[in-house]
Amino acid sequence: MLGADRPTMSPLEYHKSTKSKKRRMVFKLCASRCRLLGDTTTKVCLHSLLCPFRASVVSHSSLGDAKVRHYEFNVEYFYKKIDCVEQFVLGINRQFPGPTIRAEVGDTLEIAVTNKLSTEGTAIHWHGIRMYGTPWADGTVSITQCAINPGETFIYKFKVDQAGTFYYHGHHGLQRTAGLYGSLIVDLPKGKKEPFHYDGEFNLLLSDWWHKSAQEQDVGLLFKFVEFRWVWEPQSHKMVVVEADGHYVQPFTVDNLDIYSGESYSVLVTTNQNPNQNYWLSVAHRDANISTTQALTLLNYKNISPSALPSFPPPVPPIWYDYEERKVFTKKVLALSGHTPQPPKNSQRRIVLLPNQDLIDGYLRWGVNGISLSHQTTPYLGSVKFNLKSAFDWKSPLDHYVPYDYDITVPPVNHTLTMGSRIYQLQFNQVVDVIVQNTNSFVPNISSFHPWHLHGHHFWVLGHADGKFKDGDEKLFNLKNPPLKNTVVTHPYGWTAIRFRADNPGVWSFHCHMEPHFHTGMGVVFAEGVEHVKGIPQQALACGLTGKLLMNKKRSSSNDNN
Amino acid sequence: MLGADRPTMSPLEYHKSTKSKKRRMVFKLCASRCRLLGDTTTKVCLHSLLCPFRASVVSHSSLGDAKVRHYEFNVEYFYKKIDCVEQFVLGINRQFPGPTIRAEVGDTLEIAVTNKLSTEGTAIHWHGIRMYGTPWADGTVSITQCAINPGETFIYKFKVDQAGTFYYHGHHGLQRTAGLYGSLIVDLPKGKKEPFHYDGEFNLLLSDWWHKSAQEQDVGLLFKFVEFRWVWEPQSHKMVVVEADGHYVQPFTVDNLDIYSGESYSVLVTTNQNPNQNYWLSVAHRDANISTTQALTLLNYKNISPSALPSFPPPVPPIWYDYEERKVFTKKVLALSGHTPQPPKNSQRRIVLLPNQDLIDGYLRWGVNGISLSHQTTPYLGSVKFNLKSAFDWKSPLDHYVPYDYDITVPPVNHTLTMGSRIYQLQFNQVVDVIVQNTNSFVPNISSFHPWHLHGHHFWVLGHADGKFKDGDEKLFNLKNPPLKNTVVTHPYGWTAIRFRADNPGVWSFHCHMEPHFHTGMGVVFAEGVEHVKGIPQQALACGLTGKLLMNKKRSSSNDNN
Repeated sequence: MLGADRPTMSPLEYHKSTKSKKRRMVFKLCASRCRLLGDTTTKVCLHSLLCPFRASVVSHSSLGDAKVRHYEFNVEYFYKKIDCVEQFVLGINRQFPGPTIRAEVGDTLEIAVTNKLSTEGTAIHWHGIRMYGTPWADGTVSITQCAINPGETFIYKFKVDQAGTFYYHGHHGLQRTAGLYGSLIVDLPKGKKEPFHYDGEFNLLLSDWWHKSAQEQDVGLLFKFVEFRWVWEPQSHKMVVVEADGHYVQPFTVDNLDIYSGESYSVLVTTNQNPNQNYWLSVAHRDANISTTQALTLLNYKNISPSALPSFPPPVPPIWYDYEERKVFTKKVLALSGHTPQPPKNSQRRIVLLPNQDLIDGYLRWGVNGISLSHQTTPYLGSVKFNLKSAFDWKSPLDHYVPYDYDITVPPVNHTLTMGSRIYQLQFNQVVDVIVQNTNSFVPNISSFHPWHLHGHHFWVLGHADGKFKDGDEKLFNLKNPPLKNTVVTHPYGWTAIRFRADNPGVWSFHCHMEPHFHTGMGVVFAEGVEHVKGIPQQALACGLTGKLLMNKKRSSSNDNN
Repeated sequence: MLGADRPTMSPLEYHKSTKSKKRRMVFKLCASRCRLLGDTTTKVCLHSLLCPFRASVVSHSSLGDAKVRHYEFNVEYFYKKIDCVEQFVLGINRQFPGPTIRAEVGDTLEIAVTNKLSTEGTAIHWHGIRMYGTPWADGTVSITQCAINPGETFIYKFKVDQAGTFYYHGHHGLQRTAGLYGSLIVDLPKGKKEPFHYDGEFNLLLSDWWHKSAQEQDVGLLFKFVEFRWVWEPQSHKMVVVEADGHYVQPFTVDNLDIYSGESYSVLVTTNQNPNQNYWLSVAHRDANISTTQALTLLNYKNISPSALPSFPPPVPPIWYDYEERKVFTKKVLALSGHTPQPPKNSQRRIVLLPNQDLIDGYLRWGVNGISLSHQTTPYLGSVKFNLKSAFDWKSPLDHYVPYDYDITVPPVNHTLTMGSRIYQLQFNQVVDVIVQNTNSFVPNISSFHPWHLHGHHFWVLGHADGKFKDGDEKLFNLKNPPLKNTVVTHPYGWTAIRFRADNPGVWSFHCHMEPHFHTGMGVVFAEGVEHVKGIPQQALACGLTGKLLMNKKRSSSNDNN
């Protein structure tokens, strides 16, 4: 059925404001063009989802220097032409993408999310925000909170402690696929400057878009996934990469940028080319042999017609199977000296994860170290906090996959997966290394790119390499200038190593950011310092066994959860 | 958009068992034929939804003479070809229609409904069952219970105190439209006989089916509704109507049967025609000028080929605008003397309801006496039981529409509706008359048929007439042999009067059975004797303000709800 209804690229919209002229422009791929002033440098914030529309700050109040910014989000379906075809989309305040949230470091966001759906619960994850002290606000159903019921409002209140280009998106079923997302941009405090110069900025949130509804995809589990490649018009303007996932990186210049779901980059573009013609902008998929057409629009120099086509043809997207080029790009992303802390020299625990794909009772599922993560009716945060022994399987999952000699170059042999609900309990403040070992999928000769996203933390990316990770490979780790990120790709048949400190009391998921991969079990859960978690809102606990617990007995002490 | 994707008739399936031969046959409209033995009389149980598949009784245990019958229902989506086109359908245990429930009068049903959906809540209404003593088991989200969350199981336990042909269906959003329904047949106790003879029986559950998903219909509110007409092949076999909504009626013979959503009938058919040919069976829509093709299949006499087409063409469905013929049919439905109690001679309260259609903030909604019923996050049953003043608007809605001179022959003038959540509080055991006054819809010269369904009661249908109900019209009431029903139609521009005793402690909805009409506000809520309601399961209260209440304070007395 997939062949009949391939994904299409979503439109590009951007918001541009030059500080001097307060000029704003919006273009849509369907109908419009992009206009830039000549000889200016523009910061392009790329998120791998889609592009912002307009912010709808309701109000903000002061809290010393920092502000509390209040938003009201109504989650509902409505009809919209996304790629020139009218479809229903899951959006916020009847906008798709949802309103852009813009804040300064140190601000507190208070976002009242009201579920206006008929039968579906919902929740919103604030991707890239650490949620230190507010793990219940991470927005992951079955992990950190109960779904928000139809008609109900849940108030997310959390501090943004890190400048950068982030976003938010649904984290329940396939609601992100259905369109539930928007941009979240955290600026430096006034007076502080970024370590690079630009004249204006625009934001691009890249996403795929399907003509099959998310519900239908959920039912059929007909998943086919894509990664994004931002293909800047190659014989003209270059891109200088300056930020990744909210952290400055050593600037490097590229013609093309590989960006995976869950990642964000800022790049600088200078309009220093011949101002008497327009230039192609292109976004193309690079996953396997997908024939989805690239998305094209025009970079329009101000002095000529916005509809004038370039004299040269659109760029040809890079060959999808050029894995080497992609690995080279990944290795160029390095921390900017003086702006990113260095990792601890040693780790205290190493967890080697082997995600693979296999059949369970005839259903194709993903799993990690033998366990396909099932969706719990009682969120883990409450289950761990209240020590609910029957809420899930408390036995520890494995710190290393078995068998040790698992052949990553072939499809799984026999039944390698079972459904499960185990979690990794990390010692609070311990330094943990996680190695994600990529494998062959269920189909011979296919190993995909998987972008792994960690909630509640930024991690150092210590390295990537081909083949199986083995003892001694830690000598390949880059401990000098590894970038801090929240999402990192694993290349086909290779491994990726990350390091982080388990210093954020809460329960955090670590999963492939391809929504249907996670939805079908490709993730694990880390719990750390849950005894220090305070103030979980009752509403986040009002389902499953935590709901029962709270309804059945007066809590013995009000300090329990405050 | 409707023009591009009209509803199609759903397939007919039936299960036939003759007591002597234990023969079972299933036919589907897509591929098969219906076989009948010559010269036998068959009871055809018609429900206006769809037809049964197979029962999946897990077990049953004795309770004196009566049995407790246990079922396990898993609610989930799956792919199925309903009308030869593969689509996803919301079914039970991967069956569509859901398993047929079969019980005897006095039995207790214990049905464990597990929600296997990703993001949607669910609930199942047991249509036509009075739920005396178990109002929390009526299965209406926002009225009698909290939705069952994904992954959770809710146990419906209730007694069936009335023989007849009933069914069950989803009662949350448009989940019935999505396919969530099945048959519920209650037999007389062994040894007791029905007041008519037949040799075998089969069950037909009629329903519409759409190529647009229920979700998409919900989003677009592109609703267009149909009523059903069972068009028996006119020059042959007659139908003798013997039962309506679980009550015996004075037998009468028809060629065609009008059946509206929410109704059920049993008819006898004798295979007394020329056994050397087959006969057409036809089901056709009769709502407005819908061009949906009639559904056809064959009645196959055993001694000839099941695929032999009749020598005559299929019957032409009756003209949709022949309203008079439909009123005549309605008036033929009268109680069978000696089998149905007569109504109280007088009522103690009269409520005149005027449903109409109007715009609220640009959205087309239905409402009753000025109020379009909104979906409450806290179910009314718990709100009334615990006297939660902020859960909804406790002000009484009007017992008569205003203005009194409302012109029912034209679209509504100005803004006649507001969103609301009021309920009618009925004095316990009072006899109540409800007059439903049909009107012109939002479109000039259109007044539709609306089948009104009352939960928790069977009511006497006292009469129907054209035009506006006025004082004195009660002298037209049939108090001698009015049928007892749970669903009754209102004819265009006419009124329908019902009488019932408010003797069932609980909160009950009374609404148009067209699911999208109810979904967009065409219903009212009656509350009666709620102080007598005991034993509401905690899970039915575990949302909204009742959830909060139970979590916030240890209940002062355990007798409160037990």
